[in-house]
Amino acid sequence: MGLKDIGEFGFIRRISRGCLIRETGVVRAIGDDAAAVTGDPDQLTLVTTDLLVERVHFLRESTTGAELGHKSLAVNLSDIAAMGGFARDAFISLAIPENCSIDFLDAFYDGMKALAVEFDVNILGGDTTRSKQDLVINIAVIGSIFEAQLLLRSGAKPGDIIVTTGFLGDSRAGLHLILNQIETDTPALRELRRAHVLPKPYLREGRFLAETGSVTSAIDTSDGLSSDIRHIAEESAVGVRLYADQIPVSDHLTAFCKDIQEDPVLWALSGGEDYTLLCTVAPENVASVCRDYEEKFASPLYRIGEIITERKMELVLADGEIRAFEALGWDHFRPGIA
Amino acid sequence: MGLKDIGEFGFIRRISRGCLIRETGVVRAIGDDAAAVTGDPDQLTLVTTDLLVERVHFLRESTTGAELGHKSLAVNLSDIAAMGGFARDAFISLAIPENCSIDFLDAFYDGMKALAVEFDVNILGGDTTRSKQDLVINIAVIGSIFEAQLLLRSGAKPGDIIVTTGFLGDSRAGLHLILNQIETDTPALRELRRAHVLPKPYLREGRFLAETGSVTSAIDTSDGLSSDIRHIAEESAVGVRLYADQIPVSDHLTAFCKDIQEDPVLWALSGGEDYTLLCTVAPENVASVCRDYEEKFASPLYRIGEIITERKMELVLADGEIRAFEALGWDHFRPGIA
Repeated sequence: MGLKDIGEFGFIRRISRGCLIRETGVVRAIGDDAAAVTGDPDQLTLVTTDLLVERVHFLRESTTGAELGHKSLAVNLSDIAAMGGFARDAFISLAIPENCSIDFLDAFYDGMKALAVEFDVNILGGDTTRSKQDLVINIAVIGSIFEAQLLLRSGAKPGDIIVTTGFLGDSRAGLHLILNQIETDTPALRELRRAHVLPKPYLREGRFLAETGSVTSAIDTSDGLSSDIRHIAEESAVGVRLYADQIPVSDHLTAFCKDIQEDPVLWALSGGEDYTLLCTVAPENVASVCRDYEEKFASPLYRIGEIITERKMELVLADGEIRAFEALGWDHFRPGIA
Repeated sequence: MGLKDIGEFGFIRRISRGCLIRETGVVRAIGDDAAAVTGDPDQLTLVTTDLLVERVHFLRESTTGAELGHKSLAVNLSDIAAMGGFARDAFISLAIPENCSIDFLDAFYDGMKALAVEFDVNILGGDTTRSKQDLVINIAVIGSIFEAQLLLRSGAKPGDIIVTTGFLGDSRAGLHLILNQIETDTPALRELRRAHVLPKPYLREGRFLAETGSVTSAIDTSDGLSSDIRHIAEESAVGVRLYADQIPVSDHLTAFCKDIQEDPVLWALSGGEDYTLLCTVAPENVASVCRDYEEKFASPLYRIGEIITERKMELVLADGEIRAFEALGWDHFRPGIA
C-alpha cells in the first residue's frame, strides 16, 4: 500500500494516533493551521531544527523505518539536551517519494513515538508532502528552560575541565559498517551499528548538568569531538587541551580499529554523530559533579581535557608529546576525513 | 562560487547578517544548539512548519531566489495569520544541491529577510546541509496569541457568513503560466505570475479579525477554496453554501480564463496557494466587521457564502441552480484537477 491509496489527509489521520503524549498546556495539536501551546511563564522557549536527507544522512535501504524515526527525533532532542532544557513538542515534516511504503512510514512514526513517550515529548504538527526522489525529514523541537540554567557554548573559562557523557567514535564506526556493507555478525559490530542508527539523547543528563550550576558551556557531539570542542573554544574565546588517553573509547571501537589498522582516538576525535554531551565544568566543582553524576546515572562523566587561555587546540598523547589538532569533523559542504 | 568554496560555517556566517530584526526577548539567536527566547506569559505559543521541495512545489529555473525566499517564509506566516497570531521567529532549514549557486542562495535569503523585516519576524536558526539533487526548504515559524483571540477551524456555526480577504484562483493561473512556459508579456499575466510566486501573508488582517471577537473560524487558502472550506466544515461539523457570483475573481483571471476557455469560478474553487484568509463571521456582526476591515485595509472583505446546518457543500450558481461540490483542491499524494 502506498500513500496514493490513502491520500495526504488519510495519512495525517493515520499518523496522528499516539502523538499527544502530555495534554497539559496543549490548546491545539495536529489539525489546524498551527499548533497552540501554553508556556511556563518562568521559562525560556528553546527551538531547534534538523534536516535529514536520504543519500546524505542515511541510506533508506540500510536502515529500518523505526531506526530512522528514532534517530530523526533523537538528534533534535540532543540539541535541547545540549542547552540543558526540557524537550516539549516536536513538529515533523516529511517529503515522501512514491517508492516509500506505508509500512516503512508507519515504522518511522512508531520509532519516533517510542522515543517521544520515553522523553514525554508531544508530536503536535508538521507538514507532509511529496518528493520526486529522496525521502527528506525535517523535525523542529520546542523545549523550555529556566534562564539561569541555560547552557551555552560561550561560557568556558581557562582552567575549566572538559567532560563528556559517553563513548566517542562508535557512531563513525557504525557508519563505516553501513557504507561498506559489512555484516554486523558479532555483538560488538552490532553495538557499533546501533550507536549510529539509534543514538541516545542525553536529555536527563543535560538537565542534571544544567541544575548543578557548575557547567560553564555545553554542546552535543554531532559534528565530531574535534569540531564540536572547537565551537566551544571559538564561542568562548579560549583554547583547548585534550588528553588522548582520557578520551572514552569503547572496547568495541578498539577491537574494530585494530582489525582495520586505524587509531581509535582519531576516530573518536573526527567521528561525528555520537550525540554525547560535551561540557566544561568549573574546576572547583568538577569532583562533586562527576561523583553525583555517576551516582545518578550509573555511568561516568569522562574528563577528557581542560580549557586553556591561549587560543589553540592541542592534543596530549600518552607519551606526553603535544600535537596541535584541527577541527577534523564533518562540514556538510567540504570533504571530511573519511 | 559554490558552497564548497566557503563551507557550512562560512555559509552560516554569511547568511546570519540581518537575521535579528527585533532583539527584545531573544536570549540566544543563530549560533548555539538551539535558539532561546522569552515569551509573553499572557500569550499562547503558536508553531507551524512548511516543507517546500524542488520539482514538487517549485521549479528552480522558473523562479528567482528572492521570490523563492519570499514565498517559503510567506506560506508559514500565512499559517500564523490564519490563527490570528503575531509571527515572531523563523527557523530555516535548507538541503542544498551542488549546482545551487551562492548567488541564488543570497537572493533567497534577501527575499526572505525583506519579508521578515516587513512583519518584524526574527530569523533565529535552522539547519543547513547538502542534498543529492533537489533543493529542499523547511521553515518553522513561532508565533504568539492571546488565547481568547485564537482563531481555530472548528468554531463555525450555522448562519455564520463566510468571508475571504482577496482574489482566488490567480495563483493557480500563475502556476499554469509557469508550467506551460507562457511568457508573461502583459501586466495582467505578470500579476497572475506574481500572485503565485510572491503571495501576501495576511498577518495584519488576521490580527484585526482575531481582535474583532466576531470571527468563529479561520483557515488560509493554501489547498484551494473548496478544499479549505471543507476543513472548516469538517472541523466545525457543519455544511457550507457558497455563491458562485460572490467569489472574488480578479479581472486578470477572468481575461486569462476567457482566453483559454475555462471557468474562472472553477479555478477560484480548485486553485490553491492564494493564501487569503477564509473565515466565518457571526451574522449579527458581519456588517460592522466588513465596514471596519475595509476602512482599515482599503480593501473589501468578500462575503462568499454561509454556514448551513446540513453537512453538505453546495454552490449556488448565478441562475439560482444549486450544485453539490467536492473538495477540488490539492492533495499532495493524489492527482489534482489540473
